[in-house]
Amino acid sequence: MTDSLRDLAGQLDQFARDRDWQQFHSPKNLASALVVEAGELLEHFQWMTEEQSRDLAPERRDAVGAEVADVLLYLIRLATVLGIDPVAAAQAKLKLNALRYPVDRARGSIRKYDEP
Amino acid sequence: MTDSLRDLAGQLDQFARDRDWQQFHSPKNLASALVVEAGELLEHFQWMTEEQSRDLAPERRDAVGAEVADVLLYLIRLATVLGIDPVAAAQAKLKLNALRYPVDRARGSIRKYDEP
Amino acid sequence: MTDSLRDLAGQLDQFARDRDWQQFHSPKNLASALVVEAGELLEHFQWMTEEQSRDLAPERRDAVGAEVADVLLYLIRLATVLGIDPVAAAQAKLKLNALRYPVDRARGSIRKYDEP
Amino acid sequence: MTDSLRDLAGQLDQFARDRDWQQFHSPKNLASALVVEAGELLEHFQWMTEEQSRDLAPERRDAVGAEVADVLLYLIRLATVLGIDPVAAAQAKLKLNALRYPVDRARGSIRKYDEP
Repeated sequence: MTDSLRDLAGQLDQFARDRDWQQFHSPKNLASALVVEAGELLEHFQWMTEEQSRDLAPERRDAVGAEVADVLLYLIRLATVLGIDPVAAAQAKLKLNALRYPVDRARGSIRKYDEP
Repeated sequence: MTDSLRDLAGQLDQFARDRDWQQFHSPKNLASALVVEAGELLEHFQWMTEEQSRDLAPERRDAVGAEVADVLLYLIRLATVLGIDPVAAAQAKLKLNALRYPVDRARGSIRKYDEP
Repeated sequence: MTDSLRDLAGQLDQFARDRDWQQFHSPKNLASALVVEAGELLEHFQWMTEEQSRDLAPERRDAVGAEVADVLLYLIRLATVLGIDPVAAAQAKLKLNALRYPVDRARGSIRKYDEP
Repeated sequence: MTDSLRDLAGQLDQFARDRDWQQFHSPKNLASALVVEAGELLEHFQWMTEEQSRDLAPERRDAVGAEVADVLLYLIRLATVLGIDPVAAAQAKLKLNALRYPVDRARGSIRKYDEP
């Protein structure tokens, strides 16, 4: 993990410890909290067109940023309690995706959109 | 953003560019993809007890790690297209949470669990 | 609840009983399973334009129908274990929505899209 | 579809028509709204133990019922705009599940919990 993420992970750990919240922070619960926050993030966009979502008003962008933060914080916390390095996992996944979506085959089309 | 996250953001940008996928990467679509991946992460835990979720078999932990990676990658990509710094947003949110959940009041109890 | 929904609820109850699955069917777990299935439903649409989502190929529509079914089944099961009548709750919510979104104010615009 | 669900579907159709909301009700948008509401439903349970989720206070149960209603309403609306009969789809899925989870093999254990 990078220094900034490790820093956030450490702050979250202290935050939970100070409040005796480790008891609530099972991976099951944190994964639930993560998807709840991801839903709150999506809520901002649910009635927008794609074009509108690309051109947010500043106050909306700030509100979305706060949801991005919540998702990141629960993701880091979940990774910590599971002993997973999220950046290493992401790098491994990127390598896999490069094999799964070769440039020549994937150009201009995302698989899940083409196939039922 | 930290160097490692900036690095991932740059790789994702190149990945999308190489495949002409920027057209699909509207914030609306990326937020959908994010919640879909968060759901796949939660799926691992849905029938487990909290205790079981704290003690995963190695192959399960790896599978969960791959979902953590997917969530992180879409989160970084979404932040990039919106021009949001996710680490700065997370640091701001942590400060806010420290005010919202004062140690003495929040000890041993999470608000959303106490209040309907 | 209507006869058809009561029928589905009864079949689900028997299904769980036959397999000794009531132990897994806590509201917490069923709500997780529900959001996981809702994510699988959304996955079909995540890279589509809205226009494409309005005009599905038959095999895609069938696949989407199977996800709609999963969501409905978990929703009915959750309502059963909680002792909630989902149709009565939906009728109550519709009445509330009629007050919340008066025709003259709501015409052509959905609140959550207008307000941050 | 049963009479009660057809009734709800008709009311939702009129509701959208009266407000000129059909433009927002693409399957893509409705599937997003559905997962957002499913997340709000899960939020009630995220920090509870399974035991607590089985024994809700009355006001909590009412609040959960309102979220169950939202999920059902968006599910019915999505089925309507796609021309899917949700009850028929659920009956078909139940038959499939009976084959997938034979009583003798599935007793006391849910597959997704056993297999990574």
